[in-house]
Amino acid sequence: MLLYFLGMFGIAAFAITGVISSGKKDMDLFSVVFLGMVTSLGGGTIRDTVLSVEAVYWVKDTSYLWVAFLSSALAFFIVRFIDDKKAVFHYADSFGLALFTVVATEKVLNLGFPPTIAITMGIITGVAGGIIRDVLSHRPPLVLGREFYATPAFLGALLLVLLEKNIPAHEFNSIYAVALVFILRVFAIHKDLYYPSWLLYKKR
Amino acid sequence: MLLYFLGMFGIAAFAITGVISSGKKDMDLFSVVFLGMVTSLGGGTIRDTVLSVEAVYWVKDTSYLWVAFLSSALAFFIVRFIDDKKAVFHYADSFGLALFTVVATEKVLNLGFPPTIAITMGIITGVAGGIIRDVLSHRPPLVLGREFYATPAFLGALLLVLLEKNIPAHEFNSIYAVALVFILRVFAIHKDLYYPSWLLYKKR
Amino acid sequence: MLLYFLGMFGIAAFAITGVISSGKKDMDLFSVVFLGMVTSLGGGTIRDTVLSVEAVYWVKDTSYLWVAFLSSALAFFIVRFIDDKKAVFHYADSFGLALFTVVATEKVLNLGFPPTIAITMGIITGVAGGIIRDVLSHRPPLVLGREFYATPAFLGALLLVLLEKNIPAHEFNSIYAVALVFILRVFAIHKDLYYPSWLLYKKR
Repeated sequence: MLLYFLGMFGIAAFAITGVISSGKKDMDLFSVVFLGMVTSLGGGTIRDTVLSVEAVYWVKDTSYLWVAFLSSALAFFIVRFIDDKKAVFHYADSFGLALFTVVATEKVLNLGFPPTIAITMGIITGVAGGIIRDVLSHRPPLVLGREFYATPAFLGALLLVLLEKNIPAHEFNSIYAVALVFILRVFAIHKDLYYPSWLLYKKR
Repeated sequence: MLLYFLGMFGIAAFAITGVISSGKKDMDLFSVVFLGMVTSLGGGTIRDTVLSVEAVYWVKDTSYLWVAFLSSALAFFIVRFIDDKKAVFHYADSFGLALFTVVATEKVLNLGFPPTIAITMGIITGVAGGIIRDVLSHRPPLVLGREFYATPAFLGALLLVLLEKNIPAHEFNSIYAVALVFILRVFAIHKDLYYPSWLLYKKR
Repeated sequence: MLLYFLGMFGIAAFAITGVISSGKKDMDLFSVVFLGMVTSLGGGTIRDTVLSVEAVYWVKDTSYLWVAFLSSALAFFIVRFIDDKKAVFHYADSFGLALFTVVATEKVLNLGFPPTIAITMGIITGVAGGIIRDVLSHRPPLVLGREFYATPAFLGALLLVLLEKNIPAHEFNSIYAVALVFILRVFAIHKDLYYPSWLLYKKR
């Protein structure tokens, strides 16, 4: 149940980033909503079609579709009153990344897949929506920037797998993992957190 | 049967837009044909893999593949004699959008999915091919421009669902819906049709 | 068995191109590894989800995932010592293109699909990973350049189908086809090999 609501929050968060992102160009209501929905539903759609264990989640349960639609539409009307759009964008993106990565990792684990697959699908689910958003908005994907992005997702997915292995009965495992991803990512944004330069691959 | 031929026309129309789009750069025959085929088969491929009810349509019936291939190859040789490439591009794109949206909506309805899924998959099928084309040709996707694009697709899919619900025996439901999408889109191009400015999301 | 190892080599080759490609921007270890993995696993993932005959190959056999991960990580540390990155990039890309196209064509043939589907899926598997890499790195896809790219892939897939039909017992069919793609592509790079100008579609 907790997973379910966390997933819904992630959808709303990513929908907002899609709406803000599209706002860089003149756009009509439905195009903005479309980009919001693709951003928020894209990652999980890739996860479910690649695993193909069951129907894609928003086809099976259309409430996901409605949450994506309504939060995109709502964001469309509200976003114009926000002053610091960039901050909201980055916070919502980090929040969505954290929620999607952890929820997907747990979901794939529960389906009986090995940890390697769970962690991989968790990262893919977390970053794919944002990648689609950035490619469609015609700008370099956030995940390929210098600051930590894939790294927090990886560490969060790893933490969840370790917690589930060792204290499976514990209720708040996913909360801890979500917090780890979110905090690392917020640090990355604010403190310009990235690897020491010998770990950075730099073209001379 | 009508649906079948409408689908074939949509494939040919989108193949032409792919060929025209790729023509902005020096390109060889097979690359152009490749882009034409991806543009025309991309939307339906996403629809079928996401729904995963049956095999992807052009795998099950290779005539779709041949129509995409032959119309792309033909367009490659003919397109150079066309003067107003931009007009042909926009008309063919509108035509393909109209046909794909409506055909997909009807197909998904016939498979027994609820109207929300049918409308969503209709819009995705209609716009996805063009998005892939625009991303590969390295320019901002048409759907994220200011003029009506997702909106006509949405209204057409909605009209079809309403008609099928109320006059299911009527033979020309899909024709009406196709006409609605096409006419709205042509108006959007010629008359610069878009939402009133309070509905436009604009970055100040 | 031969196919298996050829596939692994293809994954390593494409992983290297992903790492080199991402190196154009400052990037962290995991983002680079992520791009390497997406480049190397992307094509086959699309093939398997579109055919949906069996689970995606790296979900069924995680050694593919490990090869992609380890070669990306290794490439990350080694690539900085390479002087002519552009040459390595193009050779590795040609090698990956050749291997993926041929391995995928053979795999799809063995699954019992007709030659048209096998050739189509072979080309898609060969070029898709590179397309994703180029789109994410924010530059025009290699396949849409002027030099031969889709053409060698097509000819190699065609040669394999013809060989398998006529001398199915022969052990080295796939080697011949791989060699054809690779040699044509290397010629294309070094000798600027492309269609005669009447076959080129050029915008005046």
